[in-house]
Amino acid sequence: MQQVIFRPARRSDLPAIVALLAEDALGSQREVVSTPPDPRYLSAFEAIAADPNQMLAVADEGEEVTGTLQISFLPGLARKGAWRGQIEAVRVAASRRGSGLGQRMLAWAVAECRARGCGLVQLTSDKSRTDAHRFYERLGFLASHEGYKLALPPA
Amino acid sequence: MQQVIFRPARRSDLPAIVALLAEDALGSQREVVSTPPDPRYLSAFEAIAADPNQMLAVADEGEEVTGTLQISFLPGLARKGAWRGQIEAVRVAASRRGSGLGQRMLAWAVAECRARGCGLVQLTSDKSRTDAHRFYERLGFLASHEGYKLALPPA
Repeated sequence: MQQVIFRPARRSDLPAIVALLAEDALGSQREVVSTPPDPRYLSAFEAIAADPNQMLAVADEGEEVTGTLQISFLPGLARKGAWRGQIEAVRVAASRRGSGLGQRMLAWAVAECRARGCGLVQLTSDKSRTDAHRFYERLGFLASHEGYKLALPPA
Repeated sequence: MQQVIFRPARRSDLPAIVALLAEDALGSQREVVSTPPDPRYLSAFEAIAADPNQMLAVADEGEEVTGTLQISFLPGLARKGAWRGQIEAVRVAASRRGSGLGQRMLAWAVAECRARGCGLVQLTSDKSRTDAHRFYERLGFLASHEGYKLALPPA
């Protein structure tokens, strides 16, 4: 495997990240790919970059972005005031699946949560993503919760 | 029903909120109740208050706090850069369950998410909380995801 660096995303990574989100089976129905990226993605990137409790990250393999995820560091009262690290929008390039990259990227993200003092890491995964479920369970995650979503259509 | 105000929590609400967290079947094993509250709760309260993307809220019924929840407003790239409102740590006082208070509190929280421009509201609920699952489903939430947790014990 080529050397991989996991690092916070830069604005110049945005087209590659949006492409990874759109490459996904569910994402292909939800995302729009264009050059330059849709301004809604740029707004979201700026909001993430402005929030010290958000980290958008990429797997960088010699100038090619081959993976992405976002960590939200969440303060909360429950569990004696434990911080939570929440991982969202995990994607690995199709060409790199099965290579161990996803596992290394998640291990890196969990270490980032630990370094920030989190007592818990949490994520949700669509029930249709059975391969992902086995992946998270191998990493020690427990499917202890039901994950609920409520879409809010524009008014 | 007495008039209820849903509002951001004040520091003086902290003992009542911790008591609500601890009253819960799962919370009773995870929380510590003391006067004054354990300093870890105060630190967590301050972290929430300092973060404009966090809102700890209470149901206030004439000086008695009868419910609580936390909303995290999360920027993200997925779904065309949609903001998400995430609801955590929902609790209703035992004496007020079945009164409709929980439903009103959740409806208020969803409206807050809508007012902040969120395209999605999400929450997870422990798989043992089957009453809560019926409650969320009545409110229109779909259990579309598996919710994974990984505890990070102190090093």
